[in-house]
Amino acid sequence: MDETCVNVKRLEENEEQCTDEDKTAQDKVEEQLISSNGHSSKPWQQSRSRIRECVLYVKKVLVSFARMEWYCYALLGIITALMSFFMDMTVAKLLNAHQWLYGCLKGHHLLQFLCWTLYPACLCALSTSFAHSICPFSAGSGVPEARAILLGIDMPDYLSLSNLFAKLFGLICTLASGSTVFLGKVGPFVHLSIMVGAFMSRLHDSCRGGKQRAAKGEMLVVASAVGVASCFGAPVSGVLFSIEVMGTHYSVRDYCPCFFAAACGAITFRLLSVCSRDQETIQALFKTSFSSDLPYQPFEIFIFALLGLFCSILSCIYLFCHRWALRFVKTNKPISRLLATEKALYSAIVAFLLGCFTFYHSAGHFIAAELTMKQLLTSLLDSTSWYTVSQNASALPEPQKTFWQAWNPPGKSYFQTLGFFIIAKVGLLVVACTLPLPAGYFMPVFVYGEGTAYLLSDGISSAESLINPGGYALAGAAAFSGAVTHTLSPALLALEMTGQCSHAVPSLVATLVSNAVARAKHRPSFYDGISLIKQLPHLPSLIRACPKLANVQIKQFVIPAGVVLERTETLTSLQRILNDSTDNEFPVVDSHDSPILLGTINKSQLWEGLQQHGNEGLCKQLEDVCSIQPVRLQLTTESTVKQAHCIMSVTGEQRVFITESGRLCGVITWKEMKKIIEEMAKEV
Amino acid sequence: MDETCVNVKRLEENEEQCTDEDKTAQDKVEEQLISSNGHSSKPWQQSRSRIRECVLYVKKVLVSFARMEWYCYALLGIITALMSFFMDMTVAKLLNAHQWLYGCLKGHHLLQFLCWTLYPACLCALSTSFAHSICPFSAGSGVPEARAILLGIDMPDYLSLSNLFAKLFGLICTLASGSTVFLGKVGPFVHLSIMVGAFMSRLHDSCRGGKQRAAKGEMLVVASAVGVASCFGAPVSGVLFSIEVMGTHYSVRDYCPCFFAAACGAITFRLLSVCSRDQETIQALFKTSFSSDLPYQPFEIFIFALLGLFCSILSCIYLFCHRWALRFVKTNKPISRLLATEKALYSAIVAFLLGCFTFYHSAGHFIAAELTMKQLLTSLLDSTSWYTVSQNASALPEPQKTFWQAWNPPGKSYFQTLGFFIIAKVGLLVVACTLPLPAGYFMPVFVYGEGTAYLLSDGISSAESLINPGGYALAGAAAFSGAVTHTLSPALLALEMTGQCSHAVPSLVATLVSNAVARAKHRPSFYDGISLIKQLPHLPSLIRACPKLANVQIKQFVIPAGVVLERTETLTSLQRILNDSTDNEFPVVDSHDSPILLGTINKSQLWEGLQQHGNEGLCKQLEDVCSIQPVRLQLTTESTVKQAHCIMSVTGEQRVFITESGRLCGVITWKEMKKIIEEMAKEV
Repeated sequence: MDETCVNVKRLEENEEQCTDEDKTAQDKVEEQLISSNGHSSKPWQQSRSRIRECVLYVKKVLVSFARMEWYCYALLGIITALMSFFMDMTVAKLLNAHQWLYGCLKGHHLLQFLCWTLYPACLCALSTSFAHSICPFSAGSGVPEARAILLGIDMPDYLSLSNLFAKLFGLICTLASGSTVFLGKVGPFVHLSIMVGAFMSRLHDSCRGGKQRAAKGEMLVVASAVGVASCFGAPVSGVLFSIEVMGTHYSVRDYCPCFFAAACGAITFRLLSVCSRDQETIQALFKTSFSSDLPYQPFEIFIFALLGLFCSILSCIYLFCHRWALRFVKTNKPISRLLATEKALYSAIVAFLLGCFTFYHSAGHFIAAELTMKQLLTSLLDSTSWYTVSQNASALPEPQKTFWQAWNPPGKSYFQTLGFFIIAKVGLLVVACTLPLPAGYFMPVFVYGEGTAYLLSDGISSAESLINPGGYALAGAAAFSGAVTHTLSPALLALEMTGQCSHAVPSLVATLVSNAVARAKHRPSFYDGISLIKQLPHLPSLIRACPKLANVQIKQFVIPAGVVLERTETLTSLQRILNDSTDNEFPVVDSHDSPILLGTINKSQLWEGLQQHGNEGLCKQLEDVCSIQPVRLQLTTESTVKQAHCIMSVTGEQRVFITESGRLCGVITWKEMKKIIEEMAKEV
Repeated sequence: MDETCVNVKRLEENEEQCTDEDKTAQDKVEEQLISSNGHSSKPWQQSRSRIRECVLYVKKVLVSFARMEWYCYALLGIITALMSFFMDMTVAKLLNAHQWLYGCLKGHHLLQFLCWTLYPACLCALSTSFAHSICPFSAGSGVPEARAILLGIDMPDYLSLSNLFAKLFGLICTLASGSTVFLGKVGPFVHLSIMVGAFMSRLHDSCRGGKQRAAKGEMLVVASAVGVASCFGAPVSGVLFSIEVMGTHYSVRDYCPCFFAAACGAITFRLLSVCSRDQETIQALFKTSFSSDLPYQPFEIFIFALLGLFCSILSCIYLFCHRWALRFVKTNKPISRLLATEKALYSAIVAFLLGCFTFYHSAGHFIAAELTMKQLLTSLLDSTSWYTVSQNASALPEPQKTFWQAWNPPGKSYFQTLGFFIIAKVGLLVVACTLPLPAGYFMPVFVYGEGTAYLLSDGISSAESLINPGGYALAGAAAFSGAVTHTLSPALLALEMTGQCSHAVPSLVATLVSNAVARAKHRPSFYDGISLIKQLPHLPSLIRACPKLANVQIKQFVIPAGVVLERTETLTSLQRILNDSTDNEFPVVDSHDSPILLGTINKSQLWEGLQQHGNEGLCKQLEDVCSIQPVRLQLTTESTVKQAHCIMSVTGEQRVFITESGRLCGVITWKEMKKIIEEMAKEV
């Protein structure tokens, strides 16, 4: 019953309550810690106990201000932001080193080629081999796995400390390979943040003296918000992301923690860049300077809607190619054999091939391959139309001049370069997505959407320079990335990243339209596609891919309920059952012949009851000894798996009994549920 | 079982699915409509049926693009935005008329006094008498009632069409009384939007041929988002508002509809102001122009946090005064007698007194009473420090000059005016809150927060003009209104209203800090306070006021389950029960002596069973005739009311059986739940 009680608590509304019970329990644990320490035989007893007392005093003072959770949330935000900042710094250093080397070799085409191709190939190989030798679960984005975890499925391998280190190091290597492999940071970072969250929840539990609370789910939801927030310094989009990608029901209880932790993360991340003298004050990550007097004409709203439509069609094509590539890699025998045994080699080969293609003297100068992802993002968010710039390119200030030169290679116009960029990048991105290393796919998609929208709008504006192509790039990026991931938060993310409120309505319109088309007819999202290919236990994506699965009944998956007690069970047999069984809770039925489910009995309650009535002999029955706790939730054999999964994840119930006309048929636990979904995934 | 099936559907995840069943059912209804029309004896049969066919064809075409819901959502957004816009226009016209009259009477102090005091007094009396004669439930903000409705409580009086008209007309009168009574629009507008939503949900049901779906709750949640969005043209804050003020669990299924409808509302609202030539393009409602190069120094983050702290303390004082005033009005005999019989008179007297105080030649010129709420908002969001302005006031451009003159009356400095404004407005606002007319309290609080923060920051910046007081005003407004309502969405609302992304972090920090202090120690929010005084059936606010209520057990409130069937019930008695009873569902127990709950049987199923087996005589029992549907959810007598309420509102269950060791004790329905909560409210 304890378990169910805790679950009911999870259901209760948003309220910060530190009950007296909790406090006294905590105090007791602290006293025990002090006293037990006094009797131990470890060295430096006195100083140890003094330090411990100090720690406990500090803890007491802290707890008097706010509950321990809130410190954990703040710490979660700060740690994630620190990770994000130092990762960015390391990656920037590595990228600079590469660019410096490349610049030094100017004039030596062969050496430049080797530098351009081998550097990312080595880094990708390193990333892959490191990630796979430490923790094979660290490859990929991590968001699909995180979604399954947040829906209640237990996947401890994905939350381990070794995974954290493997993912962190692997991601740094991936990002340092630069625009050759052109992969991003967000997805793995959300996963990293969730791992830190899982660690924090364990820390919190140990702080409360081992008294387990069902706060793990809460901490993971908060962590998913923090992941996005401290990646871009965008707290509100983080909260929206945590609502939409995760789960079917969002507990309003998690809302304030999400905001708080996300704000801590975002502020720390931005303050760190102020401390490192990158910025003078806290500002948007990719600050733009659109004119705010007349950001767009009212009729342009319709053009933005059309842009959304175009982006959604493009996203369907991209998603189709992506799924095809993943399936090809899995089914093609030579490649799958290579991937099974020599992952690092595969990564190196693919990175080398990508390097060959993007080398300046091969195809690189057609697609502005020398610009890093950050530079691409900044160059496309420029409000001045390139058509205008092309009239007077020599007068441009510094960073813009570099961008202009990259987009305007000798003999080609920026229009052709951008067009070729868009065609080539789909292919390159799809190939890069097959790499078995920790990498994010959101930012490439975001930049790609930006480029497409810029090309379109600049095409229109070349006639009359009324249109601000930067605004279109912003809306296009939001729309395309929203359509690919089936989320609306990119609309806000684009604004928070650029600090550009004037384009709120256009980016929202474009994202809504693109989402409407992308979600129609049960098309799976990017994450759904990965879930399906990886056969992850994520039911919503399975059902989106194959709507028939929504009607699969639970009948065929029910397992027997283990030890079942009768209402009239004698104390002798109870004693035997207690000694034999490892279960913590037993269902009680009317009789074994007519197993009408009456309720459950807790093991500890049963022990107590037996000890109290032990002397009174064997005439007593189960009913007289213990009170039977009724079962709050039961499903019928005709319930669908979808219903069961949904109810279990919303109520947080750990096991649900299955009955037929009141008669107990079996039980479903989360472990069982995971197996069921995995089985269903194999069939798709 | 139908009901429970529908409820399970409500629980299922965010997915747009138009099943074939639905479609065929719909087609049938349409065919029936056409055919039944053909046989009727009404006039113009042919043209009527042709029109009907056309309508059905249009409907078919629409449904082929998207489900009918989405058109309802869009319509909801558009209707609400139209209402908001035309209300604003009417109010502006009425305010202009007042100002024109007041201006004409320049020089005649007595006539000016009468104009200043009688105009709002008459309007308030009109608002009150109209609202109360049409629908007495239309008074007040409406948000506390909306919160109860969204948690599942049935309050049809608050969603009626008469309430809609009473509230709309009353609100226009209230707003037209201007800065004398100083009341706002948001709260009633959210309520209005929810009423439109309820109407839309009925329309949607009738579109689907009377086939009821449990989409009402969904539509109301969407409507609450639309209310905020189309009041300020702020879609994202609308969505956040719908998450935080409403309910304990937010269904992610409602997320996309909320965004979509809120965007429709916000865009329509802003486009209308473009059409009416107020603005050149879609822009923020109160657009500001802070410098974006260095919006604030990094160390100012701490000042913003301190500002949040200060605002939260101020909010506690304000809330205390507000609750005291409400209680005083309720308990003071002369006033309560006046309020019981002559509400309009009370409103007129209070408005007259407020007018006397705010008249320019009494105290009005100390508190800039001649500025309307919009002007106050705009004047305080100015980025140029008043200290700088005071050096060279004559060079100011037009609107700013008026503001400057209003804040700088002859013989007083702006500093003194603002200080007096802050002191006097608390009192005026608390008095105005007792008026029994439709009015919002969010915007006054917002403006008040703005003023306080402006005063503080301008006080600091008078020494060195580095600080932008407009930014502080923004953060202060968000922090104060957030602290008063216990919400975080004002932080985003302030940004969306002003289009000022650069101050995202400061306003978020200030709002988080102010919320943390305001929510500590179970302090009730503004809405909670009203819920308590009005004894509304809103359990979370009751528990916040009196935490002990969280432990009240359901035992004492259980009512008997009505007609209970035995497993072995004979067909004769079944026939009799069916004829006598009006229930739609019957619980089935093992036997009346040992009433172990087996499940339920639907009335229609029972009828079918009886008809099928009617000929086989009376030897058959209930078990043989129908299959018993197990009860998915049951509670024990020891469950608390809080648990029951929470589970019922999350699962959408309409009735829950209460058992004790498997034996049926009674039942709890929403009607019963409402009574229980009302009873608990009386005790607080």
